[in-house]
Amino acid sequence: MRNLFADRMAKTHKSFIREILKVTQDDKVISFAGGLPNPKLFPVKEFADACQKVLLQDGENVLQYSTTEGYLPLREYIAERYFINKGLQASPDEILITNGSQQGLDLVGKVFLNKGDRIIIERPGYLGAIQAFGIFEPEFVPIPLLEDGMDIDLLEKALKANQTKLFHTVINFQNPSGVTYSQQKREKLADIIKNYNMVLVEDNPYGELRFMGEDLPSMKSYVPERTVVLGSFSKVVTPGLRLGWICAGRDVMEKIIVAKQSSDLHSNYLSQRAVYQYLIDNNLDEHISSIRKVYKKQRDLMVSMIEKHFPQKIRCTKPEGGMFLWVTLPEKVSSLDLFKLATKENVAFVPGKAFYVDGGGENTLRLNFSNSDEKKIEEGIKRLTKVIKRMLV
Amino acid sequence: MRNLFADRMAKTHKSFIREILKVTQDDKVISFAGGLPNPKLFPVKEFADACQKVLLQDGENVLQYSTTEGYLPLREYIAERYFINKGLQASPDEILITNGSQQGLDLVGKVFLNKGDRIIIERPGYLGAIQAFGIFEPEFVPIPLLEDGMDIDLLEKALKANQTKLFHTVINFQNPSGVTYSQQKREKLADIIKNYNMVLVEDNPYGELRFMGEDLPSMKSYVPERTVVLGSFSKVVTPGLRLGWICAGRDVMEKIIVAKQSSDLHSNYLSQRAVYQYLIDNNLDEHISSIRKVYKKQRDLMVSMIEKHFPQKIRCTKPEGGMFLWVTLPEKVSSLDLFKLATKENVAFVPGKAFYVDGGGENTLRLNFSNSDEKKIEEGIKRLTKVIKRMLV
Repeated sequence: MRNLFADRMAKTHKSFIREILKVTQDDKVISFAGGLPNPKLFPVKEFADACQKVLLQDGENVLQYSTTEGYLPLREYIAERYFINKGLQASPDEILITNGSQQGLDLVGKVFLNKGDRIIIERPGYLGAIQAFGIFEPEFVPIPLLEDGMDIDLLEKALKANQTKLFHTVINFQNPSGVTYSQQKREKLADIIKNYNMVLVEDNPYGELRFMGEDLPSMKSYVPERTVVLGSFSKVVTPGLRLGWICAGRDVMEKIIVAKQSSDLHSNYLSQRAVYQYLIDNNLDEHISSIRKVYKKQRDLMVSMIEKHFPQKIRCTKPEGGMFLWVTLPEKVSSLDLFKLATKENVAFVPGKAFYVDGGGENTLRLNFSNSDEKKIEEGIKRLTKVIKRMLV
Repeated sequence: MRNLFADRMAKTHKSFIREILKVTQDDKVISFAGGLPNPKLFPVKEFADACQKVLLQDGENVLQYSTTEGYLPLREYIAERYFINKGLQASPDEILITNGSQQGLDLVGKVFLNKGDRIIIERPGYLGAIQAFGIFEPEFVPIPLLEDGMDIDLLEKALKANQTKLFHTVINFQNPSGVTYSQQKREKLADIIKNYNMVLVEDNPYGELRFMGEDLPSMKSYVPERTVVLGSFSKVVTPGLRLGWICAGRDVMEKIIVAKQSSDLHSNYLSQRAVYQYLIDNNLDEHISSIRKVYKKQRDLMVSMIEKHFPQKIRCTKPEGGMFLWVTLPEKVSSLDLFKLATKENVAFVPGKAFYVDGGGENTLRLNFSNSDEKKIEEGIKRLTKVIKRMLV
């Protein structure tokens, strides 16, 4: 039956990370590989209370079919939060609830991408976006990330060379690199994008996880008519519910609604109602602030352990937020080889190669610090140091 | 920015039914339009208990990211139920949890359909399937439904004429027509399909809602290697959770997993865990049996009211299960005109035209009996009779 599959499936394969995560399911393994939040910080009791409340007060509605756009008060909450935190004017009509921001990527791909359309992505790039967009067979144009965001010169060159439809960026604490675009870079980016008929996809799952430095403006505040923002409750409340949102102008939203409806009618309604109940019965800012404190501690410890133990020629980013560090080994040292040795020592990470659609990155790797407590970080980095030193001899 | 949208969005538009449902939100309107289950039958208390149990016993895992395939014990439950109820041998590896069977349709479209691929659908056809597949720009080949299933002669003609990739059928209590394929027709269908390199999509959301007559075999029991089955908890537990499944052979499942992962990583994990808890703490068969009793009563009442009050030249199906009746007005009487008059009398239904991709069906309409209690059915059919009589004069 193989010859019946659609052309778009020919180049796809199971996620490399997914295969790696299987290796790390063994309890003995300390894994810095996954991109998971710290479950100790999930508001389990509060969320259970919220579930009970909506089910017992309004169960017949909460369990029934609902609207494609999502629960209106939840969309109003998101719009209000954008206004308060970011000064962004978004109407609830410009917000649609998705199954995590992964579905946001899928819907954007469905609505915009013809086969062969050009899409700018970051190099290294977010794997979930590469997978979601990849299904629609675009031409990926990866532009290198520098310390303060994308290489603007190379971006301009690429935009001048050929018509480009989409531009995908994880603008804060990028996955995998941890890079955040500086204010200056955001402004430059906006100036450039204004000159082209294209859509900027500002994918922002980690923006609220800033534990040092100053919050920076959304690209939507510079180029509102060109920007589609993707948001998520996964990193600030809980990921298992798969709740995120798309914020886009009305003309785009009209198409997004059609795509969402044909994809799955609407997102889980009980979860939308329960998350909203949780949000109004609790203080989200306080909750996020406690997440930030814990993640900062974990990040500080991982950075200091690396500085103390890793050989000096190994470089490592020091992001001001998010969940990942990005490590660069000396040239010609393969992080895939390191990975194979590391798993034997029961420590795991993601080899960087997975994030480069055009090859490269063989000497890079991603470390997650959000999902390991301090004891595991200490022990895990020690194990990793041992393997690295053995390889670099 | 309009010129940036993908070609696939050009022919799509918001669902006609969705626009109709907006008209019917007024409390004064008795609506036979939607395809909603009766919320009085939702196991609200039992499900709330199940939610509490999984959250309080295992909250940190229940709220975390999970696997793309879905919760293994839930997939085992589904596989076992297929075996017990249908004699079908399906391994849990051949089952993936989706966001309702609507996502099953979307994933099947993603995995199989190239632009222009031919797909057989029923005439009238299920609107959700037309929308989901439509996104992938196939060529729809609608084959008329007779009282006992699809017109086999026309089907064979269509299959001989051109290569066809997919065949979509709602085999039990079809939406919108209420038609169920007879055993003889299933056997003939299987014989034909064996001769072609194609995939049969057996969409079966209503199969368990049989309140008279005998249960019939799944197409998977005749042509297992060619059949993909879509199932759903929406009609037997609750639809707001958006939980369904795909059952397919391993080669297909491998591609479905990739498509699901790129679509939204995995389905809502709390709901998967809570539904499983509900299923093992309660007796699903007893619950379904109580749904059947209520729906049978509502169906019997609607059928007898129609027989008593509607003019004799109007025909109406008498399905042995499901949620819908299908009404055929005299030729050249427009159900869309009737709809406009009916809404003025505060009663609504879906004009049949919406279910014909190639035009036709102007004198047909769909009536839902699951979502209205007996009082509403009596009053609603009376109102409808008044308008019909006025139109037929």
